[in-house]
Amino acid sequence: MTVSRTVELEGHIIDSGTMGHCFGVVMDMGGEFEVEEFEVGRHKHAETYCRMRVLAETESDLRAILHELNQQGATVADPRDATLEAAPEDGVVPVDFYSTTNHPTFVRVDGEWVEVEDVEMDCALVVENAGEERPRVYTKVLNAIEEGDLVVTGETGIRVEPPERPRNGSGSFGFMQGGVSSERPSASLIEEIADEMREVRENDGNVLVVCGPAIVHSGGRDALAELVRAGYIDALSAGNGFAVHDLERDLYGTSLGVDTESLEHPRKGHKHHIYTISEIARLGGIEEAVDEGVVDDGVMYECVRNDVPYVLAGSIRDDGPLPDTITDSIEAQNAIREQAQEADIVLMLATLLHSVAVGNCLPSTTKTVCVDINPATVTQLLDRGSAQAIGMVTDIGTFIPMLAEELLE
Amino acid sequence: MTVSRTVELEGHIIDSGTMGHCFGVVMDMGGEFEVEEFEVGRHKHAETYCRMRVLAETESDLRAILHELNQQGATVADPRDATLEAAPEDGVVPVDFYSTTNHPTFVRVDGEWVEVEDVEMDCALVVENAGEERPRVYTKVLNAIEEGDLVVTGETGIRVEPPERPRNGSGSFGFMQGGVSSERPSASLIEEIADEMREVRENDGNVLVVCGPAIVHSGGRDALAELVRAGYIDALSAGNGFAVHDLERDLYGTSLGVDTESLEHPRKGHKHHIYTISEIARLGGIEEAVDEGVVDDGVMYECVRNDVPYVLAGSIRDDGPLPDTITDSIEAQNAIREQAQEADIVLMLATLLHSVAVGNCLPSTTKTVCVDINPATVTQLLDRGSAQAIGMVTDIGTFIPMLAEELLE
Amino acid sequence: MTVSRTVELEGHIIDSGTMGHCFGVVMDMGGEFEVEEFEVGRHKHAETYCRMRVLAETESDLRAILHELNQQGATVADPRDATLEAAPEDGVVPVDFYSTTNHPTFVRVDGEWVEVEDVEMDCALVVENAGEERPRVYTKVLNAIEEGDLVVTGETGIRVEPPERPRNGSGSFGFMQGGVSSERPSASLIEEIADEMREVRENDGNVLVVCGPAIVHSGGRDALAELVRAGYIDALSAGNGFAVHDLERDLYGTSLGVDTESLEHPRKGHKHHIYTISEIARLGGIEEAVDEGVVDDGVMYECVRNDVPYVLAGSIRDDGPLPDTITDSIEAQNAIREQAQEADIVLMLATLLHSVAVGNCLPSTTKTVCVDINPATVTQLLDRGSAQAIGMVTDIGTFIPMLAEELLE
Amino acid sequence: MTVSRTVELEGHIIDSGTMGHCFGVVMDMGGEFEVEEFEVGRHKHAETYCRMRVLAETESDLRAILHELNQQGATVADPRDATLEAAPEDGVVPVDFYSTTNHPTFVRVDGEWVEVEDVEMDCALVVENAGEERPRVYTKVLNAIEEGDLVVTGETGIRVEPPERPRNGSGSFGFMQGGVSSERPSASLIEEIADEMREVRENDGNVLVVCGPAIVHSGGRDALAELVRAGYIDALSAGNGFAVHDLERDLYGTSLGVDTESLEHPRKGHKHHIYTISEIARLGGIEEAVDEGVVDDGVMYECVRNDVPYVLAGSIRDDGPLPDTITDSIEAQNAIREQAQEADIVLMLATLLHSVAVGNCLPSTTKTVCVDINPATVTQLLDRGSAQAIGMVTDIGTFIPMLAEELLE
Repeated sequence: MTVSRTVELEGHIIDSGTMGHCFGVVMDMGGEFEVEEFEVGRHKHAETYCRMRVLAETESDLRAILHELNQQGATVADPRDATLEAAPEDGVVPVDFYSTTNHPTFVRVDGEWVEVEDVEMDCALVVENAGEERPRVYTKVLNAIEEGDLVVTGETGIRVEPPERPRNGSGSFGFMQGGVSSERPSASLIEEIADEMREVRENDGNVLVVCGPAIVHSGGRDALAELVRAGYIDALSAGNGFAVHDLERDLYGTSLGVDTESLEHPRKGHKHHIYTISEIARLGGIEEAVDEGVVDDGVMYECVRNDVPYVLAGSIRDDGPLPDTITDSIEAQNAIREQAQEADIVLMLATLLHSVAVGNCLPSTTKTVCVDINPATVTQLLDRGSAQAIGMVTDIGTFIPMLAEELLE
Repeated sequence: MTVSRTVELEGHIIDSGTMGHCFGVVMDMGGEFEVEEFEVGRHKHAETYCRMRVLAETESDLRAILHELNQQGATVADPRDATLEAAPEDGVVPVDFYSTTNHPTFVRVDGEWVEVEDVEMDCALVVENAGEERPRVYTKVLNAIEEGDLVVTGETGIRVEPPERPRNGSGSFGFMQGGVSSERPSASLIEEIADEMREVRENDGNVLVVCGPAIVHSGGRDALAELVRAGYIDALSAGNGFAVHDLERDLYGTSLGVDTESLEHPRKGHKHHIYTISEIARLGGIEEAVDEGVVDDGVMYECVRNDVPYVLAGSIRDDGPLPDTITDSIEAQNAIREQAQEADIVLMLATLLHSVAVGNCLPSTTKTVCVDINPATVTQLLDRGSAQAIGMVTDIGTFIPMLAEELLE
Repeated sequence: MTVSRTVELEGHIIDSGTMGHCFGVVMDMGGEFEVEEFEVGRHKHAETYCRMRVLAETESDLRAILHELNQQGATVADPRDATLEAAPEDGVVPVDFYSTTNHPTFVRVDGEWVEVEDVEMDCALVVENAGEERPRVYTKVLNAIEEGDLVVTGETGIRVEPPERPRNGSGSFGFMQGGVSSERPSASLIEEIADEMREVRENDGNVLVVCGPAIVHSGGRDALAELVRAGYIDALSAGNGFAVHDLERDLYGTSLGVDTESLEHPRKGHKHHIYTISEIARLGGIEEAVDEGVVDDGVMYECVRNDVPYVLAGSIRDDGPLPDTITDSIEAQNAIREQAQEADIVLMLATLLHSVAVGNCLPSTTKTVCVDINPATVTQLLDRGSAQAIGMVTDIGTFIPMLAEELLE
Repeated sequence: MTVSRTVELEGHIIDSGTMGHCFGVVMDMGGEFEVEEFEVGRHKHAETYCRMRVLAETESDLRAILHELNQQGATVADPRDATLEAAPEDGVVPVDFYSTTNHPTFVRVDGEWVEVEDVEMDCALVVENAGEERPRVYTKVLNAIEEGDLVVTGETGIRVEPPERPRNGSGSFGFMQGGVSSERPSASLIEEIADEMREVRENDGNVLVVCGPAIVHSGGRDALAELVRAGYIDALSAGNGFAVHDLERDLYGTSLGVDTESLEHPRKGHKHHIYTISEIARLGGIEEAVDEGVVDDGVMYECVRNDVPYVLAGSIRDDGPLPDTITDSIEAQNAIREQAQEADIVLMLATLLHSVAVGNCLPSTTKTVCVDINPATVTQLLDRGSAQAIGMVTDIGTFIPMLAEELLE
């Protein structure tokens, strides 16, 4: 062990698991540690402080270890300003760029800790106005990097604040318990989610719902439309498919005689599907179709009527697409990013692709509810890292009606 | 029952299930049938002929029934030319447009049956040169429809040829048995797939491989690269993520000291991932990275070196993307469509999104192998309807090495 | 093709798929067929008749083909009495014994077609009183075979009646559509199941419920207890685990201060679980525990109070077991068999093992509802072959409350 | 907070997560803690020591907290002998009995710490010879408790040693990383498992294999038989179904002309299955069938020939059963318990029921490999708590052949 560096940790780092993870990271990556100072939090409201020296064989090993420790919340002791390097080209980062977590992050610029704006994982950090009065630091995805952007490199002068275990009780949204609540009674979990949504609404917060087409198939569409109408939803994110299914159900339920209740004439052909898109295209878009009275029911209808903004993203498996659909994936991602950053609570309902896209843009502090009948989907979404996430493995066709009943009764 | 129409069916329609489906469709949709003539195929090589009158309450019910029967291969007796109607606007089809299946289809134009080019499901049929010497009929997806295109409407003058049960033995690729071969020994199924690939290659056929990122995680990458090098793969379709994982494994396996064999330093951060994209962007693309010697191993490397064309499609969950990635979903779909139409056999390996996109463009006569560890994925892909499909629920990380051993030994 | 035999089929054999299956079976098994007579049912209420000669290379191949055809409902033409052979030992069947399907079956004894009693699949058929006035034929599982039992062998003189496609509409319970109703709106499917249960109850029918422990975890317990109390359940089949979880919830919800609503103190240790068993053992059984007032709530409590008989079967993964649990698998199977044979409708709720055990004993004519959050479980249960089965992939914790609301409102 | 008690923890309790869990348990259960002494392990080989006072509102809350802390390895300071109480009846434990974990456990009897024999979770602890020269403490499952057994109650005088994070590297079998290794390349994971098995064999250790019927369907049977023949398997645990499928494949592959390689004549009927059981019953059992030359191939054959003991447990879904099958679940559990206690490494192959049964009896120190194509099965098995477990989501039909190739090449 020839190189070393001293790092500090502070907070409820024992029961939040941080301390243990840090010791583990060092050992797993072939390093060693020497605890120089350790002041345990002696009761539940007292914080713990730890200063330790980390040793490694090579400078590059040490850097790798420090990178991991940083993401756990450790900061290099004896703080210095973050190092900055100009991006060599558009879409190209410096070799040693710092890649963000989704936790609250602070960067030391000109001796001051500046909080990072629009925290999002797997981004670069760009510093503006360094050396001037009000330096700013914000995240940039790779494709947004412009030549000359001052990008943070290394681990120095960066402080991450991973979530801590709450001190009193836990509640559903307390601290991620590392798993899906399949052992919780479904009905009481739905009540808690309703409580959360009510609270967000009372605080003028923003509820973002991410929707998959299964909502329409499984019969959750009407209840979701009611929630939009009642003002419980502030923004909607979905794919082209969800919107087409919703509109098709409306167009063919009311005008062409197929019984959407009994579904007695399920047709394998996608003629209705394509004709729905064609018809909306003819009218110019969903809003126009609502205005002309062609669409008069359903989730998209209620969004238009109640000024709930929506983002419809295209994908390579779509028919169509609708005129409203953003077919370029970078443009769509940018639109989703804006929705995600504004949300106070996100309901991810039966869609893996769109939930991952939204989840990628979320800070770890945003409350998130993932509902899917497939436990693998729920697990995958929770693993991406909101500390305030609830996963629920249930049937979207019973979940939304029960949630609506809870909220609207 | 006030309206009726006479339809005909011909072929091995009993054991292929066609006859039964047709009777069922009529009854399910509230109609009735009267068999006017029925000549059973008396032994296994003799075809069956059936002419029946279909009755319904209303003209619109009858049309719906005839639409379904048509998709099963029934043709309206007393053949007339297909009816044509001009598309009213770009991207808009006439109300009663005919929506295609993925089976071989013929359209009667000027008294002649013209075979449809580039068969693909859920498209409109456009007729060119009607009334002239060589009329053509081909499929067009909705977004490609141009104002004035002559689009086939109704069911008249259209003949579909759904696949028939083969007469001798079945083989793996015989006739879709309606299910996943989970009861088949994995090793012998892999042998059969290898046989098929060998045969396609000997006949100068085209093998298209559709790849998910799990190929890289699970350790199937080297074997797939070998198959590309050995000339067993003629085209590759994947998402941005697959290519980045493949390149990252190369870049960081050879240059930055992470041991890709033991994976002993798995890192949660995506720094390598993003830096790989940044690096390829700096060089201008994958081909340039190969030419400059930065990338010298892996699946993408072998594709470049062996002139195997690839399509990388973007998605909203991507980091990056790579310069090679097509981010617009319509453009990407068009590129995928071309690959699909040329393929003689398609291997769908551990990716639902891209497999669905490719599958949407495939005629039902193209041999297809779907491999995934999730039975739901395999079932969903088979259900989309290749008649010559094998589904295999297995581990891609053992499947590709065993397939390569079979082919390369 | 050196050997042959003539078989007949009759009924709605085209749209029920029987005819197609039979042709397919012959070709798959290397045989050939020659249709000698074919009279198609010319409209939906007319039956089809087919007589065909089946040819094979060897007598043993022919026998194998005839066995399969028989299971599809084909009978050997020129009917003769079934052949009978005495069982050589207890638990041992003659080499060529006939293995039953779960469809209604008739055996020709002394020139008369005798209906098989207690139809169940994978059994032997035993004939009693052959040559006497009232011959009987019934199923016997292998372990019940006694030396000297007259067992039916071969395929001669046996007629199976597989279910036919219903003539009008289909309803949920009509004819197995070969799949799980994941495309049906959950709420309307629950309504239909409620309708069925109401109807069975009005006709003094028998409702059997098969219960997994997830009912208790997911919060469906109270609603199920209400259904028992309201008289909607006539028999219950479960494992030791379900009963213990139900009792533990009762014992520890009311007496030891753990809040079963919020589940705020979930404990990994199984101390409560084991102590519950110990306590019931001390009292002598569930009924005694109810009588003494120790158990005063829940599903098992309502069963005891409302004289709903239950079978609790043991398994090798059980703790305990309870005194009520039948630990011998053959004895337990016999008890389950009795329940299954008496049921008019079976609700299989979130348990694969017990549902398979019950399903093994059911005739194909018994209405069956399989509910599980895992689609693979539902598919596996439906595949075992009730023709009147509904599969529903949903959350048992929302399904039972919604079903109870539907029935009890 | 009116009652309190002082507990101690010692070891690598930070990076093993123990310390964090303990703080969390106290807070979750409504208690408080005051750290009285804390000596951190300053480098990776130094142990940490913590003494803290735990406070709760009521004596019963405190007991509950102490119970949980005990299971994490905390011991009540100021050690006293464990309290003992006589079991009031057969199969009945005292109210406050101590329920075991699967970790190494010590009980203080007459001032000495006595190691518990046959550690297994969810058992009672019975003390023998207390007050005499050599006291013994061992686990007893509930149904084995006899009236008068001296059962340990409360938490006093009990020390549990949960597994610690290993100090150097981790290896596959190091310390449970809390998850399934789906990100590991399948081939290299198989190599590591082979290495482990080789090592166990070289040390005259005991390899127990737990087998599901999918091994036979998926084509892993021959490779497993080879492993038995080559001496890599010391004991086999399975259900009746596995053995019957294995024997059926042998009987009907060699004697009755069905081609087990191509499986070209898959038969839905279970005639072969039942006849196989009947035939083995006639001969008296598997060993007799091998001796008479009726069975001459396969896994069970090799077990008999190579004196590898097997336990076949019955279940309510079995046909048959075979004469060798233990139909009583308590007897079967006892037989499985013996196998489990002797095993040094356990391979759980594609069976949930039997793997759970074996897992229930395993100490947390036994190396365990769980292989299944269903990730939910693997997760469920790992969650039951071996600290030295590998989970692998793969195809058993490719896994066993690759493992055999690795071991036998």
